[in-house]
Amino acid sequence: MKLPPRTVERLSKYRRLLMEYKHEEEAHIFSHNLARLLNITPEQVRRDLMLIGLTGNHRKGYSIQALLDLIGKTIDSYDPQNIAIMGIGNLGRAVTAFIRKSESRLRIVASFDIDPLKINHEIEGVHCYPVSETEKIIKKLNISIAILTVPPDAAKGIVKILTNSGIKGILNFTSVHLDIPENVYLKDYDIITSLEEIGFFIKAR
Amino acid sequence: MKLPPRTVERLSKYRRLLMEYKHEEEAHIFSHNLARLLNITPEQVRRDLMLIGLTGNHRKGYSIQALLDLIGKTIDSYDPQNIAIMGIGNLGRAVTAFIRKSESRLRIVASFDIDPLKINHEIEGVHCYPVSETEKIIKKLNISIAILTVPPDAAKGIVKILTNSGIKGILNFTSVHLDIPENVYLKDYDIITSLEEIGFFIKAR
Repeated sequence: MKLPPRTVERLSKYRRLLMEYKHEEEAHIFSHNLARLLNITPEQVRRDLMLIGLTGNHRKGYSIQALLDLIGKTIDSYDPQNIAIMGIGNLGRAVTAFIRKSESRLRIVASFDIDPLKINHEIEGVHCYPVSETEKIIKKLNISIAILTVPPDAAKGIVKILTNSGIKGILNFTSVHLDIPENVYLKDYDIITSLEEIGFFIKAR
Repeated sequence: MKLPPRTVERLSKYRRLLMEYKHEEEAHIFSHNLARLLNITPEQVRRDLMLIGLTGNHRKGYSIQALLDLIGKTIDSYDPQNIAIMGIGNLGRAVTAFIRKSESRLRIVASFDIDPLKINHEIEGVHCYPVSETEKIIKKLNISIAILTVPPDAAKGIVKILTNSGIKGILNFTSVHLDIPENVYLKDYDIITSLEEIGFFIKAR
């Protein structure tokens, strides 16, 4: 199914929100409720859900269970994605702990570092391998996504190793601009950019 | 100046990228170069820069120094923003270190925690205060932005304290849905959503 990135992002958010209600049997929700909870318009919600083939009931809204099922069928893979953490410092540990506690199908199966005190230890419940074994382990453990939490000056070197290893997706926390082959899906997250956006809008008020 | 959030986000990204070239005198850059580096269209770049009143030279492109100056004038406040870190665990420490190392005008002036081993110590160069003093310290240090890096079950309680303290902006890393008064600017960052988006697009290939 072809969907725009922003739609996929919102579908994931709808699901995260709806998980809180999943234990209530026969629960329904209206598009305007979902919209209000996420600060978007009801039209946006209805458009997204129409794209994955769901229309609400005018009187009762959407069935929460049907929504959860269909979003799962749309955005989840048949097999859970295996993930590697590149650099298991403070940020790498925080991200690992966060994902392991979440109710998602994402699995962190390895971390990589150059620190001898970390290598071959379990950190946040995940085995740490030496960076020199990246290519071997990524293939062996069928890892498709790498999370980049190394220091900025290590970023480009690590990405070269990752693309040589056949990685398919990268979530980049380093704020370094990465030149990535077209067959790798890159998503950047830059904390400074988020804060500058907040700064601009609170100044404008 | 009224600008859409996505434009502000991109202006911040243009600046982060251009900083690498700022030491070259009289350097210029074309919209298509900027566009390629950020995986967007040249039209998008030109539209954003037109919104802040800048047009490029057909032959030479945009002056990098003029770009940096005008983006700064547009998105920076006259006074640097003071920032507080709510919860100085692994994620809070990583975020603090990251911002302090960045060449931005953002200043972290306090962190807050409930752990007696952290309170009244300097962590990543920032003083840690007890959460019970949040309201007092936020007013005293003129803090306008809070970064939420507490455990999920603490999020709602902390946000209540923050809004009572007159905070103007919140960057939320907890993935908890927050109900925020309209005069507070909220930006959510959810790691799971980013990873699910990557997972969807690498599956679709």
